[in-house]
Amino acid sequence: MDDRLTGCSEADLATWRFADAARRLVAGRSAGMTSGAAPGSVLPEALEPLWLPVAVLWERFLRFDPAAPLWPDRDRFAVSSVRMRPLLGAFLRLTGSTAAAPDLTVTGYPAAGVSVGLAGQPVAIAAGMALAEQTLEKRFGQSLVNHRTWLLSGRADLETGLAMEAAMLAGQYHLHRLCVMTDIPPGSVSDPAADMTLNCFQAAGWSVRRIRPAGVAEVAAVLAATLRSRRPVLLAFEGRFPAYIPQPPQGETSGAWVAVTRRGTTLRRSWLRRLTRHRQRAVFERATGGGITDRFTEDWRRLWRGLRRPEELNSDGYLALEFLERLIPESVFLTSAMDAGHAALRPLPVAVRACGAREGAMAGFLNGMTLHGGVRGFGVAALGSADRLRPALRFAAITRQRILCVLAEGAAGAGGVLWQQPEQLAGLRAMKDLAVFRPGSRREVVACWEGALRWEHGPAVMIISPSVSGDPDTEAGLQGGRGDPGRGGYILREAEGGLLNRSVTLLTSGGEAGLALETARLLEARGGCRVAVVSLPCWEIFALQDRDYRDGVLGVAPRAALEAASGFGWERWTGGDGLFIGPEENPRAELNPESVLPDLSAEHCAGRIAHFLRLPSRGRRGAEGG
Amino acid sequence: MDDRLTGCSEADLATWRFADAARRLVAGRSAGMTSGAAPGSVLPEALEPLWLPVAVLWERFLRFDPAAPLWPDRDRFAVSSVRMRPLLGAFLRLTGSTAAAPDLTVTGYPAAGVSVGLAGQPVAIAAGMALAEQTLEKRFGQSLVNHRTWLLSGRADLETGLAMEAAMLAGQYHLHRLCVMTDIPPGSVSDPAADMTLNCFQAAGWSVRRIRPAGVAEVAAVLAATLRSRRPVLLAFEGRFPAYIPQPPQGETSGAWVAVTRRGTTLRRSWLRRLTRHRQRAVFERATGGGITDRFTEDWRRLWRGLRRPEELNSDGYLALEFLERLIPESVFLTSAMDAGHAALRPLPVAVRACGAREGAMAGFLNGMTLHGGVRGFGVAALGSADRLRPALRFAAITRQRILCVLAEGAAGAGGVLWQQPEQLAGLRAMKDLAVFRPGSRREVVACWEGALRWEHGPAVMIISPSVSGDPDTEAGLQGGRGDPGRGGYILREAEGGLLNRSVTLLTSGGEAGLALETARLLEARGGCRVAVVSLPCWEIFALQDRDYRDGVLGVAPRAALEAASGFGWERWTGGDGLFIGPEENPRAELNPESVLPDLSAEHCAGRIAHFLRLPSRGRRGAEGG
Repeated sequence: MDDRLTGCSEADLATWRFADAARRLVAGRSAGMTSGAAPGSVLPEALEPLWLPVAVLWERFLRFDPAAPLWPDRDRFAVSSVRMRPLLGAFLRLTGSTAAAPDLTVTGYPAAGVSVGLAGQPVAIAAGMALAEQTLEKRFGQSLVNHRTWLLSGRADLETGLAMEAAMLAGQYHLHRLCVMTDIPPGSVSDPAADMTLNCFQAAGWSVRRIRPAGVAEVAAVLAATLRSRRPVLLAFEGRFPAYIPQPPQGETSGAWVAVTRRGTTLRRSWLRRLTRHRQRAVFERATGGGITDRFTEDWRRLWRGLRRPEELNSDGYLALEFLERLIPESVFLTSAMDAGHAALRPLPVAVRACGAREGAMAGFLNGMTLHGGVRGFGVAALGSADRLRPALRFAAITRQRILCVLAEGAAGAGGVLWQQPEQLAGLRAMKDLAVFRPGSRREVVACWEGALRWEHGPAVMIISPSVSGDPDTEAGLQGGRGDPGRGGYILREAEGGLLNRSVTLLTSGGEAGLALETARLLEARGGCRVAVVSLPCWEIFALQDRDYRDGVLGVAPRAALEAASGFGWERWTGGDGLFIGPEENPRAELNPESVLPDLSAEHCAGRIAHFLRLPSRGRRGAEGG
Repeated sequence: MDDRLTGCSEADLATWRFADAARRLVAGRSAGMTSGAAPGSVLPEALEPLWLPVAVLWERFLRFDPAAPLWPDRDRFAVSSVRMRPLLGAFLRLTGSTAAAPDLTVTGYPAAGVSVGLAGQPVAIAAGMALAEQTLEKRFGQSLVNHRTWLLSGRADLETGLAMEAAMLAGQYHLHRLCVMTDIPPGSVSDPAADMTLNCFQAAGWSVRRIRPAGVAEVAAVLAATLRSRRPVLLAFEGRFPAYIPQPPQGETSGAWVAVTRRGTTLRRSWLRRLTRHRQRAVFERATGGGITDRFTEDWRRLWRGLRRPEELNSDGYLALEFLERLIPESVFLTSAMDAGHAALRPLPVAVRACGAREGAMAGFLNGMTLHGGVRGFGVAALGSADRLRPALRFAAITRQRILCVLAEGAAGAGGVLWQQPEQLAGLRAMKDLAVFRPGSRREVVACWEGALRWEHGPAVMIISPSVSGDPDTEAGLQGGRGDPGRGGYILREAEGGLLNRSVTLLTSGGEAGLALETARLLEARGGCRVAVVSLPCWEIFALQDRDYRDGVLGVAPRAALEAASGFGWERWTGGDGLFIGPEENPRAELNPESVLPDLSAEHCAGRIAHFLRLPSRGRRGAEGG
């Protein structure tokens, strides 16, 4: 018999049986799988050292009430991989949870990470949950908020750069109610790679413990120490599960585990009593309830209408952040520390949590905060770092987390716009269920923020353009324009003679609206060409409009598109024969900020369009057509 | 006067003057800039502690010959940001380099990192250079390969997850000829964030030194110790540059620094003597020369033709790796350690360097290896991790580095293909100058590899599909097909009656070719519909073909596209009115590998196309059209 079982107390033996029962549940399920089963259904070897620690945790420490799986002050228990989900399911079943199968919200955490593309994401998400808890505890006090986040993580997740970013931030933020449990290979002294990961967590300010094959008492002592830690904790367990666990003579043990969860019920009842007489009760319930109210929309629009001073007229998305902070007390703003020379990200007008150049973890935190609830996280970074946000955005898109990232475009350089982001917009728009907003005027900024906050299919990205203008043309004096920026696309300027009389429809977004309008004026001035300008601040919302609306905006005339980005994907709106005008000529500008392209001039754009439409040349021909 | 200058020897004073001269060069340049200058032109505060160490390094340690800037055995000196490029330029000018301005290749390293999106990339690139050096040293010995990589890095770069990934791999690989120099804020004891970064590098197996304001002797001692280190080295310097450096009475010092670089000339001459009598001289020169020869193409095709056994007929991209290893001795294969359950990445048939779940650093290494030269790096990972490769691919695209990543699609599950990657293909195709290859048959595999190896505009990505087939239909018995997979797109099956008689052109790529052919057969069998199937294994190469060829392949009939991915971007080929058939219906499959979608059936596809073409219904109507 395994050393750890000899001389065990009856209580400890019961814990072994708990672990064994969960393990058998999963093994039985695996054994029943056909050989054609999808990967991820087998009993993972890496779980072997973890059965007992998880059993001790659930039996003696975890704060949860199976009867109320969404209790706001519950501990969050997360697993890093779909392959660990059966383990979660087994413990839920044994403790009689009303949620039969672990879904996305049972314990506040989905089983993420089946795709290697998302490796490391679970660590960032768990840290985000702990950050949400810390934020709420500061706001409402320990009598209402006093729980922990536990993450069961595979080793591969911990060795990623994303996990290290999250670990470093968790260390800096002192997220001491975060505990990650993992396995280490047997005799890890001889595995420098595994050891290196643990050492790096320690260097990031974590309390790291290596636990060699241990019995119930040792595991309980380690978990008790975790509760007292002033730093985030990483526990690395080693050792196989014993081959044989002695069962009690009477044979029947199921139901025994339901008893231990009465602890959770007691905890929750006493919490409910504290909530009832708490002076912040209403505020707390509103915060944990979430959601954007009609009241918000009203207040939001009033704030924008209230702007009078001229400098405020040059307002942009950052002002929106200030308004959000005023209207949504649950707001938490995370931001990457910007390169000093990067003018795009000015100091934000709101209280922020600085994440350093760790945009990947920052976006992962947003997922964790949203999954936790009670806070509303916003991430602010440069559009140039969009690629580093993608794994988190992707996770949010798949799990329909409504996270919101604010991405600032490169600032205007000496000679004009610095074309830094040839394909970032296209890459983001390609992601299903993610909505990309790129407003170009005050009116669009207001509408896009409302749209982004209400977008319910997944994450949203708000692009902040330095060239947002209060241009009267785009603000108020729409020349026969119609439609609503809130519908994703609308007519900014109708052609002379109306929709059916257009020679060309010029599509655009964001800061290029002014250029598009000037191009239209130039083209009409040369005669024989009637130009409509259509702004598409959000493709995804425009695509959801009914066909009549879209046709009424896009028209049937030939189409051209103008955007300070790669043209990839624009064929969706211009058709296969459409024209795209963009800055693709100098992608290397990024490497040398002094090689700023001159602004795409209206003359250039008009020339391209004239060529595209085969208009009779006016003296010297314009630039080459598409 | 600064303490560090009092009692200085004349030789040390000369070094101070060297640093001072470089600093004045850059400061003078900055002072001359107009206020509208692009960001990055000012003298960065962070460089202050670094002027002296860099001067000591260049004067006494750096192995370089200004007369031969591309000497293969030179030290690589890299800067992490465009803002540091003037520093590099100043030292080059003072040492009389024939390369007046630092361009992309002078010291083997471009000034990268101006975009925050690329933060951390320089650390991975520098480590990749050191890995190339280590590889070459093992192959040719120290008499030919005996140089180092020095990176001057901003602090923000070091705190990224990508830098940590690179640091951990550099530690594991024992890249002791790598040295990163950075600044630390004054009194960094009170800056826990900066301290944390240094501690993490130490935990990753680096030798980390904090150097408080130091004179020439201390800096020289630290650099001498660096040469002896058995681990990669991180040097963090603190302290402002002294306000006043005493100049010699005669006043004239320019030209004095040219003398110190004679050391480099001597080193190179003695290296040339060793090379001349080295038995591997020819091989060494071929390796450092690079390039794919005609001989390679011939050998490559012969290897493929030589395959006979049936199991080899089920060959795919992995077999190609084996052939590459045989034909290109410079090959180095890096691979991410795959999640045990991820069946897509089988053990590779070649010798690999395992990178763990650190695909970001892995791809950055490829950039460094390519910039270094003498080796040809290939990265192998899962397509699901494509997002983590993007910053490195982007760097390669901007700087035209010809790196090659091999990405494996998700494996077939129980019921069919696991639709894991809705938008990865679109996201990659959106990146300018990156070529994406997705072969679906043996013939396409051979042609695509040749195309990828020859792609000279930037990086290439080879998608390895589990459903590549030796299907006779696609291999040999092309039904009236024409064109060449090497041209990026070709006719796999012509419609009855030829090009001008097509009812519809069905576009596809990769493993969906078989499904497309079956769909075509079904449609023709129901009568009244003549279907051509066009395979587009590489959009970027197809787009480079002349218009006649493209028109001859695409035809004028309505177009539909079929691909196991998001349809974003396909409008480029189908036109705005085209149809896309894909698996977008279940993006959540990723979270649960058991919820595998049934294969898109040919019946379903045929129904969609019939609806799209408004063919008379045959009994029950097919699925909804686009």
